[in-house]
Amino acid sequence: MPIISNKGQHMPASPIRKLTPFAEKAKSEGKKVYHLNIGQPDIETPEGMLNAVKNIDFKVWAYTASEGTLSYRKKLTEYYNKLDYNIAPENIIVTTGGSEAITIAMMTCLNPGDEVIIPEPFYANYNGFACQSDIVVKPILSYIDNGFALPAISEFEKLITDRTKAIIICNPNNPTGYLYSQKEMQALKELVLKYDLYLFSDEAYREFCYDGRDFISPMHLDGLEENVIVMDTVSKRYSACGARLGCLITKNKEVLKAALKFAQARLSPGLVEQIAGEAAVDTPDAYFETVNKEYTHRRDVLVNALNQMDGVFCPNPGGAFYVVAKFPIDNADRFCQWMLESFSYHNATVMMAPATGFYSTPGAGQNEVRMAYVLNSNDLKSAMNCLQEALKVYPGRVEAEALADS
Amino acid sequence: MPIISNKGQHMPASPIRKLTPFAEKAKSEGKKVYHLNIGQPDIETPEGMLNAVKNIDFKVWAYTASEGTLSYRKKLTEYYNKLDYNIAPENIIVTTGGSEAITIAMMTCLNPGDEVIIPEPFYANYNGFACQSDIVVKPILSYIDNGFALPAISEFEKLITDRTKAIIICNPNNPTGYLYSQKEMQALKELVLKYDLYLFSDEAYREFCYDGRDFISPMHLDGLEENVIVMDTVSKRYSACGARLGCLITKNKEVLKAALKFAQARLSPGLVEQIAGEAAVDTPDAYFETVNKEYTHRRDVLVNALNQMDGVFCPNPGGAFYVVAKFPIDNADRFCQWMLESFSYHNATVMMAPATGFYSTPGAGQNEVRMAYVLNSNDLKSAMNCLQEALKVYPGRVEAEALADS
Repeated sequence: MPIISNKGQHMPASPIRKLTPFAEKAKSEGKKVYHLNIGQPDIETPEGMLNAVKNIDFKVWAYTASEGTLSYRKKLTEYYNKLDYNIAPENIIVTTGGSEAITIAMMTCLNPGDEVIIPEPFYANYNGFACQSDIVVKPILSYIDNGFALPAISEFEKLITDRTKAIIICNPNNPTGYLYSQKEMQALKELVLKYDLYLFSDEAYREFCYDGRDFISPMHLDGLEENVIVMDTVSKRYSACGARLGCLITKNKEVLKAALKFAQARLSPGLVEQIAGEAAVDTPDAYFETVNKEYTHRRDVLVNALNQMDGVFCPNPGGAFYVVAKFPIDNADRFCQWMLESFSYHNATVMMAPATGFYSTPGAGQNEVRMAYVLNSNDLKSAMNCLQEALKVYPGRVEAEALADS
Repeated sequence: MPIISNKGQHMPASPIRKLTPFAEKAKSEGKKVYHLNIGQPDIETPEGMLNAVKNIDFKVWAYTASEGTLSYRKKLTEYYNKLDYNIAPENIIVTTGGSEAITIAMMTCLNPGDEVIIPEPFYANYNGFACQSDIVVKPILSYIDNGFALPAISEFEKLITDRTKAIIICNPNNPTGYLYSQKEMQALKELVLKYDLYLFSDEAYREFCYDGRDFISPMHLDGLEENVIVMDTVSKRYSACGARLGCLITKNKEVLKAALKFAQARLSPGLVEQIAGEAAVDTPDAYFETVNKEYTHRRDVLVNALNQMDGVFCPNPGGAFYVVAKFPIDNADRFCQWMLESFSYHNATVMMAPATGFYSTPGAGQNEVRMAYVLNSNDLKSAMNCLQEALKVYPGRVEAEALADS
């Protein structure tokens, strides 16, 4: 029997999905499971987008241009230029989800063995994409105590070697919900220019900024034209995760030229999705206002409930729809599994993602858990009641003071 | 300005699409261009598949399982088991087009520097996918004179080193249309087992076999369970290239387990496509009978017309919808470009793909051209009239005898 590749062996399994068998078992035993583990919103996809799918009128479901249809790229340009990105359709390559934008950006810009610095905790699949391209991830710790703000630039500089080629930021952040400030973005800009690095900007959650805070993209900063690659997706913006429609944006012509070759190899993004994506750009502002109001409310429900629990701390994030909270527990993996296997309250339990999966530094995030507020506030309240009871009786409970001392 | 990766530099551009600017120019000058260059059929997508898209009734366009929905994998299992593949839904990972099935198979099975043997001419994008994974392609020449039959097994054995990990076949073949016989498949089986290799079987054109000939998959051969990975797509089967829906099939559990991790990293294949793909399995047999009758007719029109041209030779292939023909020309790249730039007949010209793009051996295929018979037979006849006139006056014409001697 031929053996599989080293990559096939070392490729990380999804930390978000690894507890799924325990959740399935809990459900088969009749327990209700509140899913706070995964970023699949319950928010409805805009009607205009779904109607565009229902109204397709072609007879042949044909390939499109590898870089995406001109029609969709023009419409996207409208969307981005309203945000002052100042781009043309030529700056966009349409991709199969944000995932493909990330893999193409990595293959285009980094050689095997090259290093990418990522503030952690970070979106777990960056590890997988780096593994695919034999790229080395250099994590840099951010801390729950200051809400996971951007680490000091001096900490970045300590990690920079002659193999460092890029920095990845996800803003607003998955998993922490942290929204980078103008000052933080400015500091990143100076760092990137000083060392001539790429800045990969994962903006999947751009539309989800709360409390009147502004979203700052590196596309808004002058002088970064050759350095910035935006990796975007419609997944969260329009609650259309299953559309697998994203894009890569850059003003760097060499990057565009090379990225197009990777896009050509896989021929084309989906036709129906691009038609739907074009309609999505016309989604009325009222949709986002309603959605953001709903998310803000949910966040408040979740964060308030968490901070009222004995020994729990949860920062109040400015964006996305995740929080990372610190629990008085010995081990997040054990705790999350125990919740599914051994605990119930009113015959229900809560599924969460242990934050360890979002850290690359061994041992980090042991008492932290990520929750996605993708359920309505009533369900969230029930889930929080359940969690509160669970923390009282969890056998591996460790008092916050003990943790602080450890 | 940060520099792009070596891969970004060396990644091949699509040889099928590289003449596109010349075609655009010809069209802008008012010339009609017969597109025989690309495998985008004009055949209509089955109604049932398009209706499934029009009838979607979900409110949230959600992720599916990374391996594809169970519902679609069950339906696919029905399809494959009618063909005697003897598989279960667990043997299938749904992919974003056949392209992703190929990249996942390569990453799962081969290390950087490992070698894959591919009979040439071959589907040009294998070069791109190999480049992405730093895999070395070892081409093995097949010859137009015997219709591009499988090269002798002894020729394969000459290429096998301790880095050889896999053989890729595309059957029926793109670009040659050649359909491997039971005897050829049996010979491949023995080779694969003798050297413990993977056999990647690209079966995109499975449904297109003509003249009553049988399609033989390595899935039909006992004893290859651990070696075979089928890479499939709905693109050609249902004329749904823009759906980007494919799958990877294997009975090798280690491969499945590793491949799933790559699938998890990119989260999910498209939801709408899987709904459509499920409906597609119920496409009535009459659809394929009509389509295959049409393709057989077109092939006959094309092959007969080509072989009646002075100095042209075209084998009569048993499957797919391509032919590779030998022309009395100095250089296929120059000829194909000249057709677009400098020739017209009744204000029309023909776009073809120079076969050089399908060879990896330098200099091979210089006087060969690939044509896809994806136009109706009237257009094909007009295109052939145009080509005949072109070959008479092409300044780089070389008589067949001279070529035979060269």
